[in-house]
Amino acid sequence: MAQQHLEPTEPVAGHAGPVTGEALAGYLRAQATEFLRALRLHRESGAVAGSGAVPPVDAARALRRSARRISGSLHTFRPLLEADWSERMRPELAWVSGTLASEHACEARLERLLLALHRLSGATVFPAQGAGGTVAPAPSAPSPDRGNLTVGAAKAGALLDRQLTLARTRAHSTALQALGSSRFHAVADNIAVLASEVPLTPAAPSTDLRPLAQAAKDRLKDAAAALPLVTAGHPYNAEALVHGLSPDPAPHPQDAPWHQVRLLLRLHRYAREVLRGDLTDVRLLAAGEALDRHRDASEAAAAAAQAARTPRIAPATAYALGVLHADQRHEVEAARFAFQRSWQMEPVSTS
Amino acid sequence: MAQQHLEPTEPVAGHAGPVTGEALAGYLRAQATEFLRALRLHRESGAVAGSGAVPPVDAARALRRSARRISGSLHTFRPLLEADWSERMRPELAWVSGTLASEHACEARLERLLLALHRLSGATVFPAQGAGGTVAPAPSAPSPDRGNLTVGAAKAGALLDRQLTLARTRAHSTALQALGSSRFHAVADNIAVLASEVPLTPAAPSTDLRPLAQAAKDRLKDAAAALPLVTAGHPYNAEALVHGLSPDPAPHPQDAPWHQVRLLLRLHRYAREVLRGDLTDVRLLAAGEALDRHRDASEAAAAAAQAARTPRIAPATAYALGVLHADQRHEVEAARFAFQRSWQMEPVSTS
Repeated sequence: MAQQHLEPTEPVAGHAGPVTGEALAGYLRAQATEFLRALRLHRESGAVAGSGAVPPVDAARALRRSARRISGSLHTFRPLLEADWSERMRPELAWVSGTLASEHACEARLERLLLALHRLSGATVFPAQGAGGTVAPAPSAPSPDRGNLTVGAAKAGALLDRQLTLARTRAHSTALQALGSSRFHAVADNIAVLASEVPLTPAAPSTDLRPLAQAAKDRLKDAAAALPLVTAGHPYNAEALVHGLSPDPAPHPQDAPWHQVRLLLRLHRYAREVLRGDLTDVRLLAAGEALDRHRDASEAAAAAAQAARTPRIAPATAYALGVLHADQRHEVEAARFAFQRSWQMEPVSTS
Repeated sequence: MAQQHLEPTEPVAGHAGPVTGEALAGYLRAQATEFLRALRLHRESGAVAGSGAVPPVDAARALRRSARRISGSLHTFRPLLEADWSERMRPELAWVSGTLASEHACEARLERLLLALHRLSGATVFPAQGAGGTVAPAPSAPSPDRGNLTVGAAKAGALLDRQLTLARTRAHSTALQALGSSRFHAVADNIAVLASEVPLTPAAPSTDLRPLAQAAKDRLKDAAAALPLVTAGHPYNAEALVHGLSPDPAPHPQDAPWHQVRLLLRLHRYAREVLRGDLTDVRLLAAGEALDRHRDASEAAAAAAQAARTPRIAPATAYALGVLHADQRHEVEAARFAFQRSWQMEPVSTS
């Protein structure tokens, strides 16, 4: 998602002095411009989609990307922005990125689950990736065929395909409706204004951004420190599957703090972008990717468990879904291990 | 199983010179005596078993223990023993230890699977053990109740209980029959002779044992070096479950080389005992325990998969068995990781 530039250990020369609200305004203007560009691209490619063109996945991703960055910056640097405007904008931006993310999430989840079914059937789909490597879904890979699956695995795959394709179709309709709604047009209008005129408070242009960025970083550090990282650092601790057969309908409250750290890590990264430009710390990137994988595996495991509750499925299908659920919960555990490794590697450098 | 003495880094003072066939004869006599003692104990406790005494589990274990050691020594130091006698004895000893092991194996497997079902249901059964700690079955623990299991987990537990208790009862009858058979009496007679008179070759008393012990160690080192230890050393490599949903009826040929190293490790340990007395290297002990765990988890996973093939089970039962199977295959992976860690810790010290 973010560009993978290596970060210099010292702040960029031009940024040596205090960074003020002016930098925030510049960042917000750039992100707003990016949003409008992606929206235009999305509409253009959408117009030709009927003629067999590639669906505007990249445009939707770029829309989400800038919506998240604007929303995150409004949150982190709240005191520097007009309160009314900022309070009004944030839930609208969350709605936009959430609505646009859903279709892609269904698609990625299905792909992840079908690839896992293939891996579990002994078919070599993709080579393991690197050191802590587990097989991750490759977004551009062709959909695997079901030639060498057992009956249970094939039926489980067909069931998941049906359920997640339905969910994806619904998400697609919802997103289309949203993009055509007056609510969305109001957001787009607001962002068009933002692209030229950022509603800073009078004091903002001379206010140092660093204390607010530091506060975002501290929230991240505190939340990460509260995670069970010692356990996560011991491989095969069998924690993630502990509630795999719990009678509790929401059996994985243990995932929530990790999801929360994922969001805080993102806010920290965006604050760094405001202060230092688009230079991404590879360590933060690795930690963020581990938490993305954690979230994806957690949701895929839930989808497998959910599919197993479909009435009148064959025992072989249920068995395959049980294996698949456990496999994805182990992916959750593997992602926690990977996060712990990248997080403990070195202290967070002072932004 | 073996006593946990710390091993001095240098050979014991009294053993400084070359160790010859005399030491082998002494070892075999001691193990034969041990076998006869355990047999007497087994018969005595068996005689009062009808009066409610504890089943002679320890006696059976001691019988197996010495039978394995005699058999292993006959194999490793074959050239020093009368060939005819040695060739005749080894399959008989394998039959004895195999027959006696089966009942205990069924019991331990059931205990492991029921404990795993409890852990997967979120019930705290036993605390995780140490660093690479996963919850291991505690042989002396009371059988866990099914109070807080889901319907699927409870039914899976009941099904496994039924199937493994039946297997255990059969194994018990087979062992009882075996112990009363003329075949067993012939083995016991042979071991009674061995306790006083070891059939060494004429050259054996002056032959150095070390080259044969070294050959056993080399076989172990070669077999261990051929294991996929690099993969095993990367946590969460997802290898052990790769064939979890394979249509192949014997889906885990990948386990066989590990089982083989387990046997070679045991032969190496016994050869060390002959040469150096009952001093056990803690590193070898840890490696051996990891491979025992590997074998146990592999067989428990197979039992869960087998139970899932029972006709007319409910989907919820099949789902729970799928989760359980995957959980035990991850235990297999965890055991490989643990073996790799203890094996790579330092080179095998020269025996």
